[in-house]
Amino acid sequence: MIDELVKKIQEKNAPVVVGLDPMLSYIPESIVGRTIEEKGETLEAAAEAVWQFNKAIVDATYDLIPAVKPQIAMYEQFGVPGMAAFEKTVEYCKEKELVVIGDIKRGDIGSTSAAYAAGHIGVVKIGNHVLRGFKEDFVTVNPYLGTDGVKPFVDVCKAEKKGIFVLVKTSNPSSGEFQDRVVDNRPLYESVAEKVKEWGADCVGTCGYSSVGAVVGATYPEQGKVLRALMPRNYILVPGYGAQGGKGKDLVHFFNSDGLGAIVNSSRGIIAAYKQEQYAKFGEQNFALASRQAVLDMIKDLKF
Amino acid sequence: MIDELVKKIQEKNAPVVVGLDPMLSYIPESIVGRTIEEKGETLEAAAEAVWQFNKAIVDATYDLIPAVKPQIAMYEQFGVPGMAAFEKTVEYCKEKELVVIGDIKRGDIGSTSAAYAAGHIGVVKIGNHVLRGFKEDFVTVNPYLGTDGVKPFVDVCKAEKKGIFVLVKTSNPSSGEFQDRVVDNRPLYESVAEKVKEWGADCVGTCGYSSVGAVVGATYPEQGKVLRALMPRNYILVPGYGAQGGKGKDLVHFFNSDGLGAIVNSSRGIIAAYKQEQYAKFGEQNFALASRQAVLDMIKDLKF
Repeated sequence: MIDELVKKIQEKNAPVVVGLDPMLSYIPESIVGRTIEEKGETLEAAAEAVWQFNKAIVDATYDLIPAVKPQIAMYEQFGVPGMAAFEKTVEYCKEKELVVIGDIKRGDIGSTSAAYAAGHIGVVKIGNHVLRGFKEDFVTVNPYLGTDGVKPFVDVCKAEKKGIFVLVKTSNPSSGEFQDRVVDNRPLYESVAEKVKEWGADCVGTCGYSSVGAVVGATYPEQGKVLRALMPRNYILVPGYGAQGGKGKDLVHFFNSDGLGAIVNSSRGIIAAYKQEQYAKFGEQNFALASRQAVLDMIKDLKF
Repeated sequence: MIDELVKKIQEKNAPVVVGLDPMLSYIPESIVGRTIEEKGETLEAAAEAVWQFNKAIVDATYDLIPAVKPQIAMYEQFGVPGMAAFEKTVEYCKEKELVVIGDIKRGDIGSTSAAYAAGHIGVVKIGNHVLRGFKEDFVTVNPYLGTDGVKPFVDVCKAEKKGIFVLVKTSNPSSGEFQDRVVDNRPLYESVAEKVKEWGADCVGTCGYSSVGAVVGATYPEQGKVLRALMPRNYILVPGYGAQGGKGKDLVHFFNSDGLGAIVNSSRGIIAAYKQEQYAKFGEQNFALASRQAVLDMIKDLKF
């Protein structure tokens, strides 16, 4: 799957992921109003609005981008109907030949991580049938429980030709509270990075990169530089661009000299572009075209 | 909610949680066979089998126990139908007046953690309606992202009178890989414990304990003793008893001198009791009665 991701990044010439993290407040009133009219003020109406909003944005941007990253929390908040909207979004993006990175940040003890891995990037066996739950291509994984919490995901990556991105240094303001604590004269996130390198060592694709990647926030460019060097063959998923504060020129050191090695996510900056002054001219009605323009601008901003 | 949990623990005289983590392999063939006959070899059949299995165990044990802890991964692996079985299980347990601890181990950047908190222990607003997604009473939270990833859960705890248990020292073999790393002359999990104390300081109930608790594995009794002293007013959820290796007498130091302060989880040891030699006499047909006997034995084992 890492080979497919790299191929698509090269084809589109865009190391860009669109984060499909639809807060209800981002969705135009015309959509939410219509779904509420049809389904009442219910979880089903919210989930349907989320799906319609996603579909419009995917339709307007899929030819420009290699991948999307739906943030499952934004669906999970609407209970079972929300999870159905997540499933529908994943399936639709795959129909559009996008690589789907499920931003699920799961991680647990071994047997439980195995169940998460099966449900999101693997298979479950029921009777003699082999079935898939949520069908992403990659997922994000939380490493706090150590190797036996991550290994089941790696095993599924190998068996199913899928991928993961392990949280190393996250983009949020308090990420340093534990991740930056100094252990053996260096920050904890560097120890995590070394483990990522180790976990991914025997699943390197023909593109030269491993199916086991890392998450490093755009908001920490200095750390990105160090981590890039520590994990030369692990792809870096970079959240925090745009709305969270990261800028294109700050991100140059997340990439290797081959121009590969990183894929940058923008969520709010793309999907709620029409709410920004810069794209206000599109109007609420043309929110998806505003998103398309925001993608084009982001791709330009990332050409260093 | 912590007051309600403590009240129920005292009423039942049992600091015990039954972990509803149903692997398909734990469920008697008679149940799985029937649901497959009805629904084919589908995710729906697996989810229905999980639900029927849970219901039988809850019916056979609810009068003995204060709380249950469904592990969401075991449902999530079966996709949307699995999530519906999770929801049904949570709702049924609440009908039976059990406290429900959703073992979800979520944790993300602020706005995303807020969505998880809303979906599991809080509310979402759709139009003028206030609705609930998954309706647990407590959830488990992963602290790797620091305060701004945990705070949204704490805020919802306060607003909705719910609770959380933050991962401090997990029960799995490799939990030490990052959690035990020495920072400022002591293991990282102690720093996390201090944060748990801080996060929970202003939501202490009339029972004297905070709505913000901690997860500390039964498999690490020495660390449990230290952590008990570090967080005197934070309840400890103790996984890893039984099948994972923890024994009753090892757990004495997880409790305070008031006999409170800890609640011990057993999953496989209870729900798959009929598969153990000790309870084989019940037979597969009476699996729920075997679970009841295992609960009675566990309660006895925890009386020190």
